[in-house]
Order: sequence, then structure tokens, then C-alpha cells
Amino acid sequence: MRQINVALAQVKCSLSNKEENVRRIIECIESAGRKQADYILFPELYTSGSFMHENIVHLAEPLKGKTITEICKYAQKHNVGVVLGFPEIENAKLFNTAVLISKQGEIIGTYRKIHLFEIEKNIFEPGVDCPVFKLPEGKVGIMISYDIEFPEVARILAIKGAQFILVLGANKFPSHPYQDVYLKARALENHVFVAMANKVGLESNALFVGESSLIHPLGKTIHKCSNNEELPVLSINIEETDIARGNLDYLKNRRPTLYAKEDNHYT
Amino acid sequence: MRQINVALAQVKCSLSNKEENVRRIIECIESAGRKQADYILFPELYTSGSFMHENIVHLAEPLKGKTITEICKYAQKHNVGVVLGFPEIENAKLFNTAVLISKQGEIIGTYRKIHLFEIEKNIFEPGVDCPVFKLPEGKVGIMISYDIEFPEVARILAIKGAQFILVLGANKFPSHPYQDVYLKARALENHVFVAMANKVGLESNALFVGESSLIHPLGKTIHKCSNNEELPVLSINIEETDIARGNLDYLKNRRPTLYAKEDNHYT
Repeated sequence: MRQINVALAQVKCSLSNKEENVRRIIECIESAGRKQADYILFPELYTSGSFMHENIVHLAEPLKGKTITEICKYAQKHNVGVVLGFPEIENAKLFNTAVLISKQGEIIGTYRKIHLFEIEKNIFEPGVDCPVFKLPEGKVGIMISYDIEFPEVARILAIKGAQFILVLGANKFPSHPYQDVYLKARALENHVFVAMANKVGLESNALFVGESSLIHPLGKTIHKCSNNEELPVLSINIEETDIARGNLDYLKNRRPTLYAKEDNHYT
Repeated sequence: MRQINVALAQVKCSLSNKEENVRRIIECIESAGRKQADYILFPELYTSGSFMHENIVHLAEPLKGKTITEICKYAQKHNVGVVLGFPEIENAKLFNTAVLISKQGEIIGTYRKIHLFEIEKNIFEPGVDCPVFKLPEGKVGIMISYDIEFPEVARILAIKGAQFILVLGANKFPSHPYQDVYLKARALENHVFVAMANKVGLESNALFVGESSLIHPLGKTIHKCSNNEELPVLSINIEETDIARGNLDYLKNRRPTLYAKEDNHYT
């Protein structure tokens, strides 16, 4: 049994107030460390807030900038891996990025949001890859918020071997019934664990709904948060992915040649 | 408003007893006609039963064989289009097929199951196309049972313009919780109506669960049957598909070039 303890940081975010948000991130890492978490998952664009568009130039940072460097130190100090969403700047281009930091405080890699939502298209460049990261506990993929509404990303991650998909959410009222459908479908149709940390509270005029969840590879909800701030630490056995896969064998029974033929005709 | 009245034939099937099943089909068509249905949807392999393997050679028929020809006459007589699952034989090959018959009693086309389940692979050839049929009321696609567990088929149908997907089910205990997740996800992620007619009752050692459903393009359940025999006739307005699509714009926001690149590396 390979156990992973995952903390879901369902926390409020202070719009455009990076200093305050970094303070909260550090508090959450400390708290997760006390509760023996291996990893802590934060929501989308957590250092800046989601509706920071006029302040984006001041809030965005390079991957190896001051903020992520500081958070790496706290990851190492508390022996907790971190998955965090932030506005990344590289060669004058902006990305809606998630960074994956190891328990040793090292940057393992990033995922850049592939499906940008509405006004985000005017701000960010979309990601071009679906990386899967090999951790000591298993293989992990990342998705960001609107990505979960497309079956393609989770499918590609599963094909590449992901056993666990971490979702950085910023899902707002009245879209919360969709979140439940999508998280269960992505877990079940790929036989992977899916965890999502969503924001709560008001940001600009948006009310974030929380309901952060952990879903089993057979589509059952292991934990679902309320609409308030929470920091649950949840244990999973990553080997249950393989057990689930044996059951209905989706990845083996796919027909990619047929999909490619049909899809190319119509896109 | 373009209204379609769809009857879901959630009916028991008599294993390997084609005569009895055809009698039931005709009864259901008559009943659906009395209730003003435009179309009636039957479960997977309804003329034969699902576990008829040793009898397959006696039960299978060509598309234009005696059984479908007879059912076409009843479709015309009662002015009800029919979607029916049956074991098809063509050039000595067997297919798990759904036929779509118009209200005028003409064969519009067929769909052959793409994702064969377990032992079916030893019996049937898999389908190689995902056709979309243009009816007077709108564009319709068809899936058969295990197909709904793969997001790819419904996605291709939606890309090809389907507004309504009809699913011929043979979903058995204890898989019924999956059915609900998949039907909602396929409807919501493609913004299409999804209707499924499932079997009920025992066939060999399998207990079929019923719970035939109609799902709105925004993922809400319009109707969900019990675990007993039922023949509900349900009205939908096909134009609501377009209204739903305006909302989150999945088909427009897909990134097929990226999917193709990532998928080709790993299949």
C-alpha cells in the first residue's frame, strides 16, 4: 500500500494582495505539516486572486521569482509538497500556472492552463503540454479549473500514466452543480483519483462555492467540503487505481485510430 | 420551438425468444403512438436479449430481414420513429447494431457499437463510424451501452452537430451508479440532450437496473425511471441545445491540435 496524505486548502483569497495571500499559504503549509500531509493543494491563481486583471503586471512573477522561492523554503521546512496556482511571467508572456514543489522544497515542474476561460484569453497564453510527474508515491497530473469541463485533458493524463489528478479550482456560483458531475466523471472514466481545492468567499462580484472534493477511481466521493474555509487532510492508497482499472479497462478498450479519423474530419 | 416527444421503452426482454420480443416491440410502438410520441427508443440487443451467444446464428438478421421490415410497417402505421437494438448479420459478420427508422417507416441508418464489452469481442465486429442523422426535428446521434463510458464517442457526435444522443442500454447491477454519472457528463460536456432506454429484470444471471433517463444539455435530469417496466413519453425542445452551448462554449474552446499531439505520443 502506497499511502498519500493530501491536504485540500479550501481558503479565501485576498484580491491583488499577494503579501496577505503568501502569509495564508505559509500558515496552511504549517498546518498541513502538523497534520502529516504529504502534499497540499491550493486553488487557481491563489497568490493574486482571479480578478486581478488591471494589476496583473505587478502580481505576476517568474517561476524562480521571490514568491515561489520563499514557498519552496516552507515546503522543505515542514516537509510538505505544494501545488500552487499563480500568474507566471516568462519572456514577457503571462501564463495561468500551477507549480508542483517537492517535500524537499524543489520545483518538480509546472502545468500551464490549457483551456482559458472567457476574459483569460485576453491576458494569458494557453499551455501547450499535459505533463505527468513521477513522485515517490505515484504519477500525478494537474488540471486548472475550466480544464475539468473538457474530458480530453484528464484522458491524456491517464494515457500518460497519471494515477492521481490534482485540480486547482476557482469555480463560482451558480456553476457548483457542474463541478460534482465533472469531478466524478473524470475520476471514473479514467480510473484515477481526482482531488480539487476550490476557493470560497467573495472576490470582486464572484462568489466561490468551495465544495472541494476527493473522488475515488470508481467515481465515489471520498470527501466533499462545505462552502466555508476548510483544510482537510485526506489519505488515499494510490494502488487502488490499478485495482479499479482492471474492472472496466477503459484505457485498453479505447479506439484511438477511429477517434482520430472521425475527429479530423470535423475540426 | 422544435418539440420532440420521445418514448423510453424500459422493458423486459425474453432471452433468445425473438417472437416474444417482437410482439412486445409492436405493443410498445402502438402504446407510444397513442401517447403522441415522435420516436421510441428501445434497449441494446432487444430482439434477442444480451446473453444469447449460443443462439446468435439463429437470432441475427440482415438489416433488411424479416424482423426490421415488419417493425418498419408498424412504425409507419402508428407514425412513430423507432430506434431498436438487434444482432445484425452482413456478409457473415455480426454487429451489435441500432437501427433508426423514420415515422414514415423507412430505414434512415444504423449505428454499430464501437466499444464492445468483454465477451462481445468474441462475437461481434466493432463499428467503425459515428454517424449523425438529420431528422426533421434536429440532428441525432446514437450510442450503445458501454459506449457512454468513453467520452470520445459523444464528443465526436457533438462535433458533427448532434443535438440529441440516444443511448440503447443494457446496464446491469451493480453498475447503476456509473450510469447516472456518465449520462449527466455526456450531456453537460457536449451540451446535448441525452436519452437512454435501459433494460429491467433478469436475463441469465444479470439483473438489469432500469433507471432509463432523459438529461438536459445543462446536465439536469429531466426524467429518471424506476427499476420496473415503464414507457414514459417525454417532451424536449431541441433548440435548448443552442442556448446551452452559448453558455460555456466547449466545442469552440476545444484544442484539438494539442490533443492530437499529446495523444499520438502515447497510444
